[in-house]
Amino acid sequence: MADSWINETLYPDWGQRFAVRRELARVTSDFQDIVVFESSSHGNVLVLDGVIQITERDEFVYQEMLTHVPILAHGSAKNVLIIGAGDGGVLRRVLAHRGVTRAVMVEIDGEVIRLSKEFLPGIAGDAWNDPRAEVIVGDGIDYVRRAPDGAFDVIIVDSTDPIGVGEVLFTDEFYANCARVLSAEGLIVNQCGVPFMQADELRETSLRRRQFFPHVSAYVAAVPTYVGGFMTLGYASKGDAIGTQDAATIAERAERDGILGTTRYWSPEVHVASFALPPYIARELPK
Amino acid sequence: MADSWINETLYPDWGQRFAVRRELARVTSDFQDIVVFESSSHGNVLVLDGVIQITERDEFVYQEMLTHVPILAHGSAKNVLIIGAGDGGVLRRVLAHRGVTRAVMVEIDGEVIRLSKEFLPGIAGDAWNDPRAEVIVGDGIDYVRRAPDGAFDVIIVDSTDPIGVGEVLFTDEFYANCARVLSAEGLIVNQCGVPFMQADELRETSLRRRQFFPHVSAYVAAVPTYVGGFMTLGYASKGDAIGTQDAATIAERAERDGILGTTRYWSPEVHVASFALPPYIARELPK
Repeated sequence: MADSWINETLYPDWGQRFAVRRELARVTSDFQDIVVFESSSHGNVLVLDGVIQITERDEFVYQEMLTHVPILAHGSAKNVLIIGAGDGGVLRRVLAHRGVTRAVMVEIDGEVIRLSKEFLPGIAGDAWNDPRAEVIVGDGIDYVRRAPDGAFDVIIVDSTDPIGVGEVLFTDEFYANCARVLSAEGLIVNQCGVPFMQADELRETSLRRRQFFPHVSAYVAAVPTYVGGFMTLGYASKGDAIGTQDAATIAERAERDGILGTTRYWSPEVHVASFALPPYIARELPK
Repeated sequence: MADSWINETLYPDWGQRFAVRRELARVTSDFQDIVVFESSSHGNVLVLDGVIQITERDEFVYQEMLTHVPILAHGSAKNVLIIGAGDGGVLRRVLAHRGVTRAVMVEIDGEVIRLSKEFLPGIAGDAWNDPRAEVIVGDGIDYVRRAPDGAFDVIIVDSTDPIGVGEVLFTDEFYANCARVLSAEGLIVNQCGVPFMQADELRETSLRRRQFFPHVSAYVAAVPTYVGGFMTLGYASKGDAIGTQDAATIAERAERDGILGTTRYWSPEVHVASFALPPYIARELPK
């Protein structure tokens, strides 16, 4: 019998709850309320402002899809910028690609990094010490404002929802700068929420990015603890539309990068399939 | 502010909860505890033995995928047997196919049908009165035991999980009889749970059916209120493996059947994509 429960407060009238074995940390940082607890169902869990961010047990779904899809869709990404993702899980997956020579990660909240290193160490593994990694505690908006033109091939934004500290990552200025710092075939990916519950998030982000990128769309992932059906991962590309390559092409790139056979959710077939959007989601995208 | 909450009790240490506007019915039938309540987030909700079965708002996901995939994969289904599915939503989708001439539905619990007609009338619509429908309140196990050889082209089992009243639907005897009453190219589909939380369900059901069918596999659907990532819909086929047809073939069949453009989750592309199984799910299937 659980001693206590934590209820996610993302939605006012529906959500998930976890039996708590013990609370590991409760911190108010300069940016948000952070809780880490040990669950009996999902291992250790990170919560920001009442919203579940990551659990040890299902983190692989989100991280694999947020990372491997854009890098392999690009096909020759060398320089990758990660914004947010303080737990280090995206950094680890980015660096798993042999072709990546530089991964810059800009996380605004140093407390998230510190607590992740202490209580979720398996998520980043040794990525923090990889010589190709540059980890900056700072403002991602400001970083892209000052970064040189064409400096990155892929930008991965692993933010909270567009409320609270993540809100500024969903502005025109931010996307305009992202388009500028991306190389000619560059692309940006970010989480666009669970459209069954948060359709506005996908619709508004996509419309906003449509101003700066010729190709804007999304792909889907079924993340166990982002409850409410498919989560959408929105992308905007300066080059060709992504999601048009076949599984054989993606498999070849994954083999070359050392990714094939290392994943639990992503596969070349799942990669291709994730671009098939149910009509209830597709209708939120710009025509 | 919600007056009260209903917690799903499917898992002991994790799950979803709904704010309850008002309780509409609470009945102990001969088979199970039935609750129907009005939620502010998902419309009216049906709960059996503490497990969320269907909500007005997201029922389309599960029902479309459980119905349209097997019927269109078969390609010329005329006689369809539905076991369970007392809310009538599968019956409605089956009858939406012009090619279907007879749909027999066998639901063990008449109270589920009665309460669904009263409190979830939109889910079945007019299907109850369709001249092609034969609705039987009775035991599905017994029905397939006595049905003639080759009487059905598709069997759709919409059961609860293999605990409680649904348990007997997951036995050798049941699957042997299903194989017998299916026509030469016939196939059976049933829900096999959410493998992230209930991997045994997919593994054991698949192994069991492997004894009676040459092709056994599964496809996935992201159902908002079957929380925990992808739900698997397991199939077993006497003819060819399903999931091998391309989207153009499926679209052509859907056009002919009057289904194309009527759906909110299913589409020919989603149909094809749903057979791409993440490795963490694929490993639960027999080799």
